[in-house]
Amino acid sequence: MAAAVTETIMDKALLEIRNALQGEDIETDPSATAPYAEDKSAFSGDARLIAAVLLPETTAEVQSILRICNAYGIPVTTRGSGTGLVGGAIPVRQGFVLSTERLNAIRKIDPIDMTARVQAGVITDAISDAASQYGLFYAPDPASSAVSSIGGNIATNAGGLHCVKYGVTRGNVLSLQVVLADGSTIETGRNVIKNVAGLDLTGLFVGSEGLLGVVTEATVRLRSIPAEIKTVGAIFSGISAACSAINGLFEHNVAPAVLELMEVPQLLAAQPRYARFAAEGAMVLVQIDGSDIGGEIERMTSLLRDSQGIIIDARDAQGDNVDLLNLRKSRPRLPREAIRTHGDVAVPRSAESTMFGNVIAIARQEGLSYTAIAHAGDGNIHTRFFQIPASEAESSDIAERVKRAQSKLFEAALAVGGTLTGEHGVGIELAARLPRQLGEANMKLQRGIKRVFDPNNILNPGKWLDADDGKKG
Amino acid sequence: MAAAVTETIMDKALLEIRNALQGEDIETDPSATAPYAEDKSAFSGDARLIAAVLLPETTAEVQSILRICNAYGIPVTTRGSGTGLVGGAIPVRQGFVLSTERLNAIRKIDPIDMTARVQAGVITDAISDAASQYGLFYAPDPASSAVSSIGGNIATNAGGLHCVKYGVTRGNVLSLQVVLADGSTIETGRNVIKNVAGLDLTGLFVGSEGLLGVVTEATVRLRSIPAEIKTVGAIFSGISAACSAINGLFEHNVAPAVLELMEVPQLLAAQPRYARFAAEGAMVLVQIDGSDIGGEIERMTSLLRDSQGIIIDARDAQGDNVDLLNLRKSRPRLPREAIRTHGDVAVPRSAESTMFGNVIAIARQEGLSYTAIAHAGDGNIHTRFFQIPASEAESSDIAERVKRAQSKLFEAALAVGGTLTGEHGVGIELAARLPRQLGEANMKLQRGIKRVFDPNNILNPGKWLDADDGKKG
Repeated sequence: MAAAVTETIMDKALLEIRNALQGEDIETDPSATAPYAEDKSAFSGDARLIAAVLLPETTAEVQSILRICNAYGIPVTTRGSGTGLVGGAIPVRQGFVLSTERLNAIRKIDPIDMTARVQAGVITDAISDAASQYGLFYAPDPASSAVSSIGGNIATNAGGLHCVKYGVTRGNVLSLQVVLADGSTIETGRNVIKNVAGLDLTGLFVGSEGLLGVVTEATVRLRSIPAEIKTVGAIFSGISAACSAINGLFEHNVAPAVLELMEVPQLLAAQPRYARFAAEGAMVLVQIDGSDIGGEIERMTSLLRDSQGIIIDARDAQGDNVDLLNLRKSRPRLPREAIRTHGDVAVPRSAESTMFGNVIAIARQEGLSYTAIAHAGDGNIHTRFFQIPASEAESSDIAERVKRAQSKLFEAALAVGGTLTGEHGVGIELAARLPRQLGEANMKLQRGIKRVFDPNNILNPGKWLDADDGKKG
Repeated sequence: MAAAVTETIMDKALLEIRNALQGEDIETDPSATAPYAEDKSAFSGDARLIAAVLLPETTAEVQSILRICNAYGIPVTTRGSGTGLVGGAIPVRQGFVLSTERLNAIRKIDPIDMTARVQAGVITDAISDAASQYGLFYAPDPASSAVSSIGGNIATNAGGLHCVKYGVTRGNVLSLQVVLADGSTIETGRNVIKNVAGLDLTGLFVGSEGLLGVVTEATVRLRSIPAEIKTVGAIFSGISAACSAINGLFEHNVAPAVLELMEVPQLLAAQPRYARFAAEGAMVLVQIDGSDIGGEIERMTSLLRDSQGIIIDARDAQGDNVDLLNLRKSRPRLPREAIRTHGDVAVPRSAESTMFGNVIAIARQEGLSYTAIAHAGDGNIHTRFFQIPASEAESSDIAERVKRAQSKLFEAALAVGGTLTGEHGVGIELAARLPRQLGEANMKLQRGIKRVFDPNNILNPGKWLDADDGKKG
């Protein structure tokens, strides 16, 4: 299937798909299909690769699409809301885009099982909205949750702020309905917490970035909305002190619902009591949720204070404790013209301080500015290296330095036992670098799995696992 | 490789293995190898199938063993402590048993990362023992934890009482060192919580019952030892009332560390205040752990009382609150001569009461006694149907009825959306029945994965996934 699909074949397939789908479920007008060539990464897709965008409304329609495309060997790139950050949903081969946006029904909220059954195109936050009448919510909360789809979250094993307490997407999915490459449908897992009947295909599909099948429905876990939520912020003299304080919290059995680490925001740096920390200081935000958490908040506040933290006065943060988290969002956005990277390496918590040091050293070596903000309980550091070009001529030099900095960041993360990506995924961004982390024997197994699930290599081909590559290795 | 391995081949392989291992690491004396043909299930192994028991002391030795066996096509059944309940570690083909018992080093306890790096043969409880000096423990706690190995726990994705709060084994393993069938070694995952670099091979190996590779080392998560642990017990008029009370706890956001449901123990039934519940009553035990849990315990106790529960007086349980859990263990053991089954189906929590009703109905239909005890937070019901034969002649009739009851139990669990096994695994016990739950398209993928990982079908062959079967489907 490595050869490009001819136009005649594509037309034939499209005709068959037209017979299987509603007329308005197929988009071929280039102005309408073009947006499906992009995601929220820095990669530019090629709109000409999209022969049609297919918008199935039922699992049966997804089955028809895959059965037909599998027969003709036509690439299908599956896509949720397109909020990915690594190019995972950007098609790189001539073919169809399968959008799950019309698979948007919430089938059932079960307050006793504390689960939701949803179609893949349901917006992540919509699950919590629907569950709220039962006092429940869906925990994983990627920054995009207001617009991302649960199917996209599953494809990328999305994380978020609350994962330090509630786990990432993989730990919150109980079962999946998946249409396989040949159009057959399976249900993985069951609507139960404990299940050891067979290999864990549910976990295998989660994070597989559209390479193994098309997830059409999912049963996800819901949690009780906590009775109380409180956030405490503290300023430390530097990253190292902040990391020590964070490790102290875990050592004293604090179970944070959110734990963020970042530079001191400008809003606070302007206040006299924090001014001396403006340059090198670090801010830690800890959220606790549950019932009767007053004592726990006091204990945690003492621990932060004992670690030389200056507790942030809520009035300085212009709001109450819960609003402290807005401080995280109040960080200035990079201007559009900045040439930048966006990495999300994750490292062992014991190496977090070292890794922050690496980020600073790399920025200095390459003469770049940087931002770094961590889901500190998970050792997951989001780093941007950037510079605003003063002239057109400067751009290519900056682009080179930015790229080199990113490369150094990845190597530094691997050197301390970390991973190239904690939340964003592989996509186009890390495809070439993945074997560096996993090693050849591991990659070979992954390629073998891809071949089992997608022997004709129609699912998101040309990415980090390609069934055709597999034939070589 | 379906043909039996000849003795000459076996001798040749053994000679090569002797050169690679220490002399005392190979056991061929039938009296010494016989115990390796059994586990804790009702299945009788055939000791004559074991040509040798191999007891490697290093990963390199495991690599040599598999490289040699893979070349000759000799079956290798990997085994931890042999505490499995479904025959997973019982060899069913002529070959070698690979025991991990001498891979028993704890490599490292990291109190900041809150992880332990251990060899596969380390006894599960030994991890908690070693971690306790840092105030940490390893959470999954199968009943066998004092004697089972972490490698066996990983092979079966072991559960336990505390999984309702801390998750099963899969959620507590961050990375694995695995020797593949061809003798190469991979490391899956990283020592980090968030990791989306590639397919989740860690989760795939967990629960794979020795069919995909030999786990030699693991990095597992540790948790802080809670400052306080309290247990409350309550007696209800019946299973249905108890299940309602349990669902009420979750509805009110109680996060139990243990939640068990069972018949009223004889010890309590003898006391006047509980006597009226002796026949049809049900006991619920709830454990909470954490800091400042006094308020939470009071709230939970009120909830149980509001649900018509009679709170158990700790003095009646002959101990303090923590000792209440001993009530669970105080249940009378079945006499040796009882003909019995042991099932551990898991069902959605909303179906738990129905499923208990099914157990009772099935026992009645078949004229059998039964015991049923549930990890109720997980819907995981351990059921035994049994009868003590009055005469030899009666045995075969009882055996038939017991088998039929077990079969009905499995069908009833599937009918309410449950799984055949919550904790024990597939092994020999459920091999024939697994496709009934998973369906053929799912089984075909699982067989395909087996073929990728073990193309010569040497790893625990003849079980529920067999690479040779794969060639047919």
